[in-house]
Amino acid sequence: MSFDRLIEKIVEMQNPTVAGLDPKLAYIPEKIKEESFKKYGKTLEGAADAILTFNKGLIDELCDVVPAIKPQCAYYEMYGWYGVRALDETIKYAKSKGMFVITDGKRNDIGTTMEAYAVAHLGETDVDGVKEEAFGADALTVNGYLGTDGISPLLDICKDKDKGIFVLVKTSNPSSGELQNLEFRSDETVYLHMGKMCEHWGETTVGKYGYTGVGAVVGATYPEMLTELRTELPKTFFLVPGYGAQGGGAKDCQGAFDEKGIGAIVNSSRGIMCAWQKEDGLDPMDYAKAARREAIRMRDDLKSVIGEMKLG
Amino acid sequence: MSFDRLIEKIVEMQNPTVAGLDPKLAYIPEKIKEESFKKYGKTLEGAADAILTFNKGLIDELCDVVPAIKPQCAYYEMYGWYGVRALDETIKYAKSKGMFVITDGKRNDIGTTMEAYAVAHLGETDVDGVKEEAFGADALTVNGYLGTDGISPLLDICKDKDKGIFVLVKTSNPSSGELQNLEFRSDETVYLHMGKMCEHWGETTVGKYGYTGVGAVVGATYPEMLTELRTELPKTFFLVPGYGAQGGGAKDCQGAFDEKGIGAIVNSSRGIMCAWQKEDGLDPMDYAKAARREAIRMRDDLKSVIGEMKLG
Repeated sequence: MSFDRLIEKIVEMQNPTVAGLDPKLAYIPEKIKEESFKKYGKTLEGAADAILTFNKGLIDELCDVVPAIKPQCAYYEMYGWYGVRALDETIKYAKSKGMFVITDGKRNDIGTTMEAYAVAHLGETDVDGVKEEAFGADALTVNGYLGTDGISPLLDICKDKDKGIFVLVKTSNPSSGELQNLEFRSDETVYLHMGKMCEHWGETTVGKYGYTGVGAVVGATYPEMLTELRTELPKTFFLVPGYGAQGGGAKDCQGAFDEKGIGAIVNSSRGIMCAWQKEDGLDPMDYAKAARREAIRMRDDLKSVIGEMKLG
Repeated sequence: MSFDRLIEKIVEMQNPTVAGLDPKLAYIPEKIKEESFKKYGKTLEGAADAILTFNKGLIDELCDVVPAIKPQCAYYEMYGWYGVRALDETIKYAKSKGMFVITDGKRNDIGTTMEAYAVAHLGETDVDGVKEEAFGADALTVNGYLGTDGISPLLDICKDKDKGIFVLVKTSNPSSGELQNLEFRSDETVYLHMGKMCEHWGETTVGKYGYTGVGAVVGATYPEMLTELRTELPKTFFLVPGYGAQGGGAKDCQGAFDEKGIGAIVNSSRGIMCAWQKEDGLDPMDYAKAARREAIRMRDDLKSVIGEMKLG
């Protein structure tokens, strides 16, 4: 259990970016939707079909420049089980193209229920002795509000299968401080306490490059806290949302990285998915090419601040 | 947006119980599994088919004595999209039998992503102008770690459709105190702070019986905290896990109820689902009848402590 595979891909591509796949219908070119609606009507099934086509196009153009994708479960669940099937097919397609897949589900529960989530998203399901992957991502985002009982069931499955998790620590949204910034009697904030629990949970899973398999979600929209957490949590790999549409820039992400230029992956969802809507006169069916151009721009933007990414 | 419909059903049946549907394969009689495996093999699809058959049998026997079911998403997701389809069909079947459905997903995110979860589980999905229910439950469990940005998108959808949410406040598991019991400088604990946020979020949604549509999850395994929270959060309806298999008894649940015997619903999952495994010499295919007997026993157990439940 570690993020070694992800770190190696980041260094190989010199790109610490994950493309968030949150495919709203409004982001999808009309022609794709028309084709799907022709087949399945304006139904959940039709919408799910359009999403899958859109995603595959993006993956084809991104897979050699971006190391990872992060599909957000909510945007698939809203199309019912048809949408969840599209999530499954998106994950399998991205993996077939060599991408690292982070399922953004922010799952949380305890004991055998959390074990079921771990099996669902990272492990293999045992059907009366026959094992089958349900969703089979490489990492899953989780919420640690329930404490160790909600995290330890993940660790066993992650260890077996070399998978990782990202625990919400300091999220990128404006109201994240309502709970996360409060200070305990010890002067420690909730987010720092949660971060230290991540270091602790990951303890026995330190990989080749010094990072454990228990990562943390820390938003780019709070750069000082990002820097604080990098110092306090030297073994915890960060997933950094908030770049681009949410207002964070490359400079804001800098604190997430160590002196070798590793230690974090920065997410962009709308920035990449909707790049085609910002290019004047573009044929909408070239959406994936526009996404690729934006991904390259973002890579260069981040690299200009982080410098070269090195394994050793 | 309120829990009025649920409260009315509880009072009508004089039963403040929700049957948790966490259908592990080990809980399902062999004969049901054999039939499903014969049709679909020992596959995710076969397992999902067995789960649906098992659930429908339970719902048939429970629907006139238990007001609500609570399917736990994890146990469906572990069978991939086939499992999620079984979740969908379970919800629709329970609703057709007049039951109130609480989807236990502990979902959490921000802004439009949280809106997507709300649409998915409680609202209607708009496919290019055509509206369709994705999962269509009556209530959803959520995790409030991200603050107001993670809750307000739910409120609009709940208001439109008379749905409710349950926010994790003090969970039933042993390690729940690692974060939830810590005290801020103000002496307030994390769980009480979260509980007060629930009162606040619910403020404008007080229903006919004095409770808002923003409920709280509070475990029966911490009875003093349950009593404390009932006093501190007079308008917040509670979902109480931890009865039975997790160690809580009727006495431990008492503090969750107000003087009219309402204000909470107590969950039992394994206790009801696995009742058949505890009756000597029972034909396993009578599992649902055993579940019904246990549900009636639990109802009477709770009633002996709470007394009569009254609307006014």
